[in-house]
Amino acid sequence: MDKPWGGRFEKDTDEMVEEFSESISVDKRLYKQDIRASIAHAEMLADRDLLSQSELAEIREALRDIERSIEEGTFEFRVPLEDIHMNIEAELIRRIGDAGRKLHTARSRNDQVACDLRLWLREAVDELGSLLADCQLALLEKAQAYREAVVPGYTHLQHAQPVLLGHLLLAYVEMFQRDRGRLADCRGRANVSPLGAGAMAGTSLPIEPAQTAKALEFDGVFSNSVDAVSDRDFAVEFVAALSLVSVHLSRLAEEWVIWSAHEFDFVDLDESFCTGSSVMPQKKNPDVLELLRGKCGRVCGDLSGLLMVLKGLPLAYNRDLQEDKELVFDAADTVEASLRVAARLIRTTQFRTDRMARACQEGQMDATALAEYLVGRGVPFREAHRIVGRAARRAAADGVKLEDLSLEQLRSLSEVIAEDVYSVLGVRNCVENYRSHGSSAPSELERQIKLWRERLGQ
Amino acid sequence: MDKPWGGRFEKDTDEMVEEFSESISVDKRLYKQDIRASIAHAEMLADRDLLSQSELAEIREALRDIERSIEEGTFEFRVPLEDIHMNIEAELIRRIGDAGRKLHTARSRNDQVACDLRLWLREAVDELGSLLADCQLALLEKAQAYREAVVPGYTHLQHAQPVLLGHLLLAYVEMFQRDRGRLADCRGRANVSPLGAGAMAGTSLPIEPAQTAKALEFDGVFSNSVDAVSDRDFAVEFVAALSLVSVHLSRLAEEWVIWSAHEFDFVDLDESFCTGSSVMPQKKNPDVLELLRGKCGRVCGDLSGLLMVLKGLPLAYNRDLQEDKELVFDAADTVEASLRVAARLIRTTQFRTDRMARACQEGQMDATALAEYLVGRGVPFREAHRIVGRAARRAAADGVKLEDLSLEQLRSLSEVIAEDVYSVLGVRNCVENYRSHGSSAPSELERQIKLWRERLGQ
Amino acid sequence: MDKPWGGRFEKDTDEMVEEFSESISVDKRLYKQDIRASIAHAEMLADRDLLSQSELAEIREALRDIERSIEEGTFEFRVPLEDIHMNIEAELIRRIGDAGRKLHTARSRNDQVACDLRLWLREAVDELGSLLADCQLALLEKAQAYREAVVPGYTHLQHAQPVLLGHLLLAYVEMFQRDRGRLADCRGRANVSPLGAGAMAGTSLPIEPAQTAKALEFDGVFSNSVDAVSDRDFAVEFVAALSLVSVHLSRLAEEWVIWSAHEFDFVDLDESFCTGSSVMPQKKNPDVLELLRGKCGRVCGDLSGLLMVLKGLPLAYNRDLQEDKELVFDAADTVEASLRVAARLIRTTQFRTDRMARACQEGQMDATALAEYLVGRGVPFREAHRIVGRAARRAAADGVKLEDLSLEQLRSLSEVIAEDVYSVLGVRNCVENYRSHGSSAPSELERQIKLWRERLGQ
Amino acid sequence: MDKPWGGRFEKDTDEMVEEFSESISVDKRLYKQDIRASIAHAEMLADRDLLSQSELAEIREALRDIERSIEEGTFEFRVPLEDIHMNIEAELIRRIGDAGRKLHTARSRNDQVACDLRLWLREAVDELGSLLADCQLALLEKAQAYREAVVPGYTHLQHAQPVLLGHLLLAYVEMFQRDRGRLADCRGRANVSPLGAGAMAGTSLPIEPAQTAKALEFDGVFSNSVDAVSDRDFAVEFVAALSLVSVHLSRLAEEWVIWSAHEFDFVDLDESFCTGSSVMPQKKNPDVLELLRGKCGRVCGDLSGLLMVLKGLPLAYNRDLQEDKELVFDAADTVEASLRVAARLIRTTQFRTDRMARACQEGQMDATALAEYLVGRGVPFREAHRIVGRAARRAAADGVKLEDLSLEQLRSLSEVIAEDVYSVLGVRNCVENYRSHGSSAPSELERQIKLWRERLGQ
Repeated sequence: MDKPWGGRFEKDTDEMVEEFSESISVDKRLYKQDIRASIAHAEMLADRDLLSQSELAEIREALRDIERSIEEGTFEFRVPLEDIHMNIEAELIRRIGDAGRKLHTARSRNDQVACDLRLWLREAVDELGSLLADCQLALLEKAQAYREAVVPGYTHLQHAQPVLLGHLLLAYVEMFQRDRGRLADCRGRANVSPLGAGAMAGTSLPIEPAQTAKALEFDGVFSNSVDAVSDRDFAVEFVAALSLVSVHLSRLAEEWVIWSAHEFDFVDLDESFCTGSSVMPQKKNPDVLELLRGKCGRVCGDLSGLLMVLKGLPLAYNRDLQEDKELVFDAADTVEASLRVAARLIRTTQFRTDRMARACQEGQMDATALAEYLVGRGVPFREAHRIVGRAARRAAADGVKLEDLSLEQLRSLSEVIAEDVYSVLGVRNCVENYRSHGSSAPSELERQIKLWRERLGQ
Repeated sequence: MDKPWGGRFEKDTDEMVEEFSESISVDKRLYKQDIRASIAHAEMLADRDLLSQSELAEIREALRDIERSIEEGTFEFRVPLEDIHMNIEAELIRRIGDAGRKLHTARSRNDQVACDLRLWLREAVDELGSLLADCQLALLEKAQAYREAVVPGYTHLQHAQPVLLGHLLLAYVEMFQRDRGRLADCRGRANVSPLGAGAMAGTSLPIEPAQTAKALEFDGVFSNSVDAVSDRDFAVEFVAALSLVSVHLSRLAEEWVIWSAHEFDFVDLDESFCTGSSVMPQKKNPDVLELLRGKCGRVCGDLSGLLMVLKGLPLAYNRDLQEDKELVFDAADTVEASLRVAARLIRTTQFRTDRMARACQEGQMDATALAEYLVGRGVPFREAHRIVGRAARRAAADGVKLEDLSLEQLRSLSEVIAEDVYSVLGVRNCVENYRSHGSSAPSELERQIKLWRERLGQ
Repeated sequence: MDKPWGGRFEKDTDEMVEEFSESISVDKRLYKQDIRASIAHAEMLADRDLLSQSELAEIREALRDIERSIEEGTFEFRVPLEDIHMNIEAELIRRIGDAGRKLHTARSRNDQVACDLRLWLREAVDELGSLLADCQLALLEKAQAYREAVVPGYTHLQHAQPVLLGHLLLAYVEMFQRDRGRLADCRGRANVSPLGAGAMAGTSLPIEPAQTAKALEFDGVFSNSVDAVSDRDFAVEFVAALSLVSVHLSRLAEEWVIWSAHEFDFVDLDESFCTGSSVMPQKKNPDVLELLRGKCGRVCGDLSGLLMVLKGLPLAYNRDLQEDKELVFDAADTVEASLRVAARLIRTTQFRTDRMARACQEGQMDATALAEYLVGRGVPFREAHRIVGRAARRAAADGVKLEDLSLEQLRSLSEVIAEDVYSVLGVRNCVENYRSHGSSAPSELERQIKLWRERLGQ
Repeated sequence: MDKPWGGRFEKDTDEMVEEFSESISVDKRLYKQDIRASIAHAEMLADRDLLSQSELAEIREALRDIERSIEEGTFEFRVPLEDIHMNIEAELIRRIGDAGRKLHTARSRNDQVACDLRLWLREAVDELGSLLADCQLALLEKAQAYREAVVPGYTHLQHAQPVLLGHLLLAYVEMFQRDRGRLADCRGRANVSPLGAGAMAGTSLPIEPAQTAKALEFDGVFSNSVDAVSDRDFAVEFVAALSLVSVHLSRLAEEWVIWSAHEFDFVDLDESFCTGSSVMPQKKNPDVLELLRGKCGRVCGDLSGLLMVLKGLPLAYNRDLQEDKELVFDAADTVEASLRVAARLIRTTQFRTDRMARACQEGQMDATALAEYLVGRGVPFREAHRIVGRAARRAAADGVKLEDLSLEQLRSLSEVIAEDVYSVLGVRNCVENYRSHGSSAPSELERQIKLWRERLGQ
């Protein structure tokens, strides 16, 4: 097949090369962005007298027809035409002839693909932002619903201090909020139009890049044509932000996988979010959580791959850059699907507050409260820590809880201990006594729930 | 849709979960392996009286029919049936009823998928081995065809010492040979049957794993059922080996991209392996080389992702492992396509020996030969190096070559220099004078060409 | 050695464990941050009556003494004390006894280390920002000094269009500007105090986290104690930003390595930035550039490693997080050293404008200008591209430049071509005729130089 | 300071460059290998009359003296001398003059460093192999000691089937065995001498690379000098093998971290392998396990970094390769320390078989056994699975175990069920009834223990 760039070539492209180097199977999803940018480009060309108004009208109409035929599935994508840009341009020319041949004036696929990808990424960021917000909302709903529940707080997966379940859940809300911030920052840096940079040097034609930038709702326009066609920072930054989203999902997934083990039994995943075993009839497996966790590897692998693609590329455009799209799309698709399913999974999950409460009785989680009690009575903290350490050992040896120790026993460890010590021991007391900003105190949780309700527009 | 594992479930699987957790879109390519392994399993079951001969016959025939319908494209893959295993089993049951319901006896998807993937990988290794050998052969052909050509040898991309082009090309043959060795070792470790491990613990039924292992031409059978279902070492090892293949291709590609720059102009890529520019009419771009280079990032990203998937998974099977396949397939497909196109690209490439010869005149590549000449006359090497360094500086300042220096000038640097020094200076002399094993001496090249012709069965 | 946390333990820590788990060899560089944060914490404790003013004075003075002794190298760091936090606290207690034992009141190493690392990172960002700005300045100086020089612009490492050297150099200035933006955004998100989160749940003591946050010049204070101790997003974001810096450096390095090859000979690296060969006396190698390129792998490896460390960690603090520091420090140190040496290397490098000019004569880089000329005369661009493609082929076959074709020859390709075509052909004309925003036009370069001079405070 | 390669240079190296490009701080640990290879090289030179016997004697003696002074810590390493090779050579020359100046005859740092690194790696592989074997032994000892213990077998972290603890532990022994195989294969490919390749082209001097290869106990000698100096496959392969070791350790660590949670309480880590909390007096944390898990990220990051360093390097030696060593050493040191501590941790760990036994009562782990019982009575497996699924649901609803269902209840699900069903229900029966090869049957465990005792030389 004749290539639009074929003028200087005497030989046809090798078929295997066509297969190897095509990107149409991947970049056809950019058709909307490509057509939108082409129309903006044509309008600018017309304003600069590089197209007549009737040519513009022809182009606009034909491009919209093409868009429609793509959406209806009647457009025939052709591998020898390499990519979405040439597929659409060739069809345009087939339909309207010379006017179509003028569309690529003062434009190169180098700035065109960068433009399309930035437009796409901008929308992807917006969609991902909504999905993150919905996950936050799902967590917030659960935090509210279970605002009374107390759960062992873990460090090193060991019982540490009792915390409100809602407080734990809101920790993930914080993570997703930072993710949204990172994506927003990425959007800001990506939302700059490269259109008009041409192949790499700009053009001698009287184009107006600021006009297309405005028409395409970019925040600004490129400053340096060489940079404009070779920059993929925005792609890396996007996948890096998604890598962190996926890490956050993997952390939540891991926690809930552990919580759904028989030994914990803290969460009751909805059956519709579990699958069974082909061989073990009794199984109800948290597959969705495991996939959320596993897919993190894939997204981070995309990041690693993308950075490696870019390493050591001299200016300006090199074909290696074509490899960016599949990695970017894969990361976005994976995280989008993950967030979508995560929000629903969260909403359908029930927590076993009875199991959590029972677990709270173990692990002497009031030890720190006791140390703080001693501090309140003037014992230096490091000394208080040592005293309580001994108390903990004794109680463990006796198989009792700290609150089961008699006042006499406690006073044998430190004479400052008085009857009121029992108002700090025990899990419920611990939680009630938290008072610092950002702590797991009930009042803090209420404050946070209120604040997040507002932020999330509830 | 009813799930084969649905007995204990009251609720249907959420549709979004079906979409999120399905693997049929990826693992359907394992249908051949799955059917082959199922037939071997059924035969073993029949031998152990867990199936009757007529049931076996029914199963065998139906599975072969199913295979045929998959190949003909008439098989309807169904997402709610999750994966290739259940898609085939469900269809089998639909076709033959109770005999089909017996196929999964003493088998789990956990050992089944591990078996299928190992079978697939074994074939992939064989195919990749052939493709590597073909690339070696293509390089060897060029090394032979250009056995006389001398090219600047570079270190730090600076002219170092003149070498035979064939010698350089055979360096890649060495790399690919090691790649073949790694793949062969990987095949060895992968070629162990996991079939019979069941879900993770084996079974109380009287099966004979060694029999299926033999029928499927595995070298051996698993030793530990827990390990058998959770081991993905072979997948990592495979992708790691492919990462190195892709690194080697990226090195060759980089070298040839540089060589095809106007300033070098050492290679003349066939037009059918180049593409043009949508905007710059004169361009002939080495896109295939750039893609070979860029795809290295992707393969190494697959490796990175796969390791991350596996990190921190407790025993035995976890659903995260499902993510292995897409990464493994992507790496294999990418490298397979790369090798296929690389071999043809190599064969169609011409070298500009005139440009190479001219380039050899620059960069004082005979300086080391001169130092070795001095060594031959008793000057300690480190001293010889210093003397020649001064000669090099002088010649550079004068804008002449070392061989253009007069004997007098040379003797002013060291008195041991005599008339015969001119038999070591100059690029051709350098090459002719190499004599050590594995060096770029013409005789060594001949020896290597002969050896590789034999090894590669030419 | 007795551990400060040893109260409940009966056995000593295994020595091998002490060696394996210590972080003091790595985190001792946080001593300044640790002491600063401890003083702020102590001041807050005193304000909240958890310390007396005299205890505060004692602590403050002793900590400053300790800081001094660390700086003087007389402080003895001890592996059994694990980390910088306990090393300092133990020494504090040794010096001042009970007041020292009170410092850890309402504080955990979990919030302490997060605080120290955020303080450190904030300074690192500032330092890296300055170094990036200095690299920008160095590039700007060269862009100014060589504002007249024209160099082949490359895509696919093939001659594409002529560009001003300054324009190319400013492309890197753009990259570094984005890097600064990313680091600034990272700083913003990192600049939140975690101090007061305690082990994970906050505390029952009347502390005031906002006060320490303010004293330590944080922009804000954590909202959720669980998140505060388990969040390492800022570390990932930091290393991700540095990965892109290193990718940018690798691109510049690659370009200049190629440019320093004999065949290009576009740059003349200062001898003081090159090294020789132990065996080849004539060599002058661009080692610094190669190391800048190679170190990119290391930084991106740190990112990959860090993400993997975080994957799948349940809340809240887990010891795996200790591995963050070495990766973060390594990335920061590597990039800091790279930027420092890069700025100097840029400043000491000379460009061979004669070689660039000569290279510009090859590769028909005015082909696009000719196509645009035709567009100006009404020829549809795609048609113009085809016409010029044929012209390019003919000129190449004849071994002449496009500008060497006679008017007759040119008109035989298209009748719209007139005498004024020669005002667009030729490299200098190409550059002079660029006119679009952000292009390689001389006026655009002037504008950019002026703008960057202002931005960089020159 | 004068550089040994400084002859053609007029300017001194910039100090910052010396700092940036030095490798002596990293590669000094190669001193033993460097000296050993130098002696072998000198002996070969003497045999080929490139050194006199007395010069050889001088060199040998001086090198051994230098080795001693390095070991005694009296050798002064100097950054301006860049690396271990030049540090030693310069000192040699300082000590013995001209004979020392002859040592670098027919050798380059390019082949020298490759040789040193291969020698080092060979030893590292051997050491790591021993450490892996010791971990295997530690696991084997525990498998023997707890041969009776039954533990829930998990898939998806859900109770799946009961297994013998020893069977689970031996799964890790299998993993480490494959690791040893990979390292051995890597050793084989690495154990080829590059010495004699020179800078990249070999030499005109009459050296005998096979002789040095033999003296250094290499299995063979390089075939292609260009490949010999640019090949780092062995480094990648080594780090890839170590990545899998670290993944295996992370899996064991994760499992045992979970097992040490209060809710599981299956393992009792020795106090000497745990640490406490600076703030929570009751804590006993499995830090060592967490670090084993976390360090996996670091090792895999090294792999990722190393591949990225190598991507796209043209032949032959480039300075980027210097970055290999730090990554290789870091991976080796990390895994070596991990294995060392892991073996001891395993040996000091006690298992809570009572907790395991109690946990086995939950999760209906005999469901599969019941299904297999039905299969034994002619029920097709898929049907049996469905029947048992319903039984499982009923038992769960009633809060009883499967074995608590009356025969009547069971028979209401399937009439083939008879009194002997109770001989397959219950955890102990499940385990006793396993019979397939590689299963968790007691006899299989015995067989495996015996086999591993033999393999590990016990």
